[in-house]
Amino acid sequence: MDKLLITGFSGFVGRYFLEYLALNKIEMEVLGIDSKEPEFDYLQYKNILLVKFVPLDLLNIADFRQVFHDFKPNYILHLASFSSVAYSWNYPVESFANNTNIFLNMTSVVRESKQKVRILSIGSSEQYGDVTKLDIPLKERQQVRPISPYAVARVSQELLAKVFAESYGLEIVLTRSFNHIGPRQDERFVVPSFIKRIAEIKASNLKAGTIETGDIGIVRDFTDVRDVVRAYYLLLMNGRKGEIYNVCSGRGVMLSEMIELIASLLDVQVDTKVNADYVRPNDNKIIIGENFKIRDELGWKPKISLEQSIKDMVSYKFASHFP
Amino acid sequence: MDKLLITGFSGFVGRYFLEYLALNKIEMEVLGIDSKEPEFDYLQYKNILLVKFVPLDLLNIADFRQVFHDFKPNYILHLASFSSVAYSWNYPVESFANNTNIFLNMTSVVRESKQKVRILSIGSSEQYGDVTKLDIPLKERQQVRPISPYAVARVSQELLAKVFAESYGLEIVLTRSFNHIGPRQDERFVVPSFIKRIAEIKASNLKAGTIETGDIGIVRDFTDVRDVVRAYYLLLMNGRKGEIYNVCSGRGVMLSEMIELIASLLDVQVDTKVNADYVRPNDNKIIIGENFKIRDELGWKPKISLEQSIKDMVSYKFASHFP
Repeated sequence: MDKLLITGFSGFVGRYFLEYLALNKIEMEVLGIDSKEPEFDYLQYKNILLVKFVPLDLLNIADFRQVFHDFKPNYILHLASFSSVAYSWNYPVESFANNTNIFLNMTSVVRESKQKVRILSIGSSEQYGDVTKLDIPLKERQQVRPISPYAVARVSQELLAKVFAESYGLEIVLTRSFNHIGPRQDERFVVPSFIKRIAEIKASNLKAGTIETGDIGIVRDFTDVRDVVRAYYLLLMNGRKGEIYNVCSGRGVMLSEMIELIASLLDVQVDTKVNADYVRPNDNKIIIGENFKIRDELGWKPKISLEQSIKDMVSYKFASHFP
Repeated sequence: MDKLLITGFSGFVGRYFLEYLALNKIEMEVLGIDSKEPEFDYLQYKNILLVKFVPLDLLNIADFRQVFHDFKPNYILHLASFSSVAYSWNYPVESFANNTNIFLNMTSVVRESKQKVRILSIGSSEQYGDVTKLDIPLKERQQVRPISPYAVARVSQELLAKVFAESYGLEIVLTRSFNHIGPRQDERFVVPSFIKRIAEIKASNLKAGTIETGDIGIVRDFTDVRDVVRAYYLLLMNGRKGEIYNVCSGRGVMLSEMIELIASLLDVQVDTKVNADYVRPNDNKIIIGENFKIRDELGWKPKISLEQSIKDMVSYKFASHFP
């Protein structure tokens, strides 16, 4: 049976990846590692998947080496990262070093083992950085101009991965993943935070209310996490070594439209007020990706509409918080 | 008086930088740091320059912080690097981490000090990596495609420097420096190694001989180190913050031409034989830079002809080894 090691197992995407395997009856032995315990029951898929979890800090290479040699994976889904852009502004050195070090530790152990392991390394649309309207939609061959320490770390990881793939023969496939959405997403993220506040208006039996926002004129490219994990599975199995793939919908949504969509689903009137504290400096006006490469090579395209994603997120919010 | 801190002080370029200051009567207080002692007499310029040296490993941030606060430089010439491409192939993790860590340590200390310090960060033409004929001559806006762990580290350093300059206001200017030549260059480098072996033929009173080489069909862009340090001085004083400048001659020389030039200066007949051990894998056929940016903005152009550089290197070789 195939053996899959998932780093950053306890996060939002790790759980959906397990669900994807289970729903599609893809039998696998899975070892999850993360510095924090997962908050979900990973044993629930036991008729399909043999899942174990080991608490592990990837900054500790000796611990990872031990786990790697005990488990002997033939696939690694590398979700782990220190992904906060805000943290990276306050602690640029730590953000850069930690992100690149966990990647270097992981790949070093694979390289020294001389085992054949396919790795999917998850990158970010943040890597594109400072882009102009002419660059939209963003293509994988676009020159990157990262503008945060976090984004520089991700670019460095990608450049190292390409060298490791081309010169050391490591089987690494790379993504630049755009915004994800889906039920259970942390409410610090933009869409769940809108839903939370609009749902609170609804739950108070008010017909209208005001929410404070950052710049809602910005446009982003959102993909449902359930589509994202399907892309990751296809890339892990069949992506080309050393190649970068955008994982995105190819469609831009202005945040103000997102608010209208949520408000109309909940049948409340929402006014917005800009709070300068929520406006990020140097934020790009428009980020939309092009997904032709993954479509053409792997036949992937998003299946879940934005409306469906939002509906599911709203249902989840009500089911879990206003039962 | 201006205070200049030079990292990587003990190397080939550090000594020429001091000579440049002394020859041009640019009075400065200079503190050199390096993990190895300089092999030259840095007190010889004492009528112009107040020079001190402190042995220091930049990987130790506490030591550097102490030295920085004691000296309070207003300029830093950051020459230090782990620059061996060959080492980086054998120890990719160490090469990457050490190169980026010394840069992060240096800039962190400057940033936390809140002092106004102008920094010149030296990069490499290796950063361009995999280029095609159509990209020649290489321009600063060219997309980089680094192909060695060393080159990735240098690209990462540059990307971090740009973020630090644009978002934290650090006064960092950047170079991508092409091949240097000049008297006293280490004989592991290509041109001094040719001179060494052709000079040995000459010194044996032979009229002809054969030397083993790598691929002498490759074309490189060589600048005399005395021109290079003048570029560094101008950039340190007047380069624009966050900007990258090629430091190069703009002229390509095939290594076979270089051999002919040395042979004709020494009046010996040289045949060459390729030794596969000397041929580097994945080496670019042609590397030539464009120097319009530094010419236009700072009025710099090389003054020392290739013929003069080679003549001086040959004279140095004979004066020091065959007196």
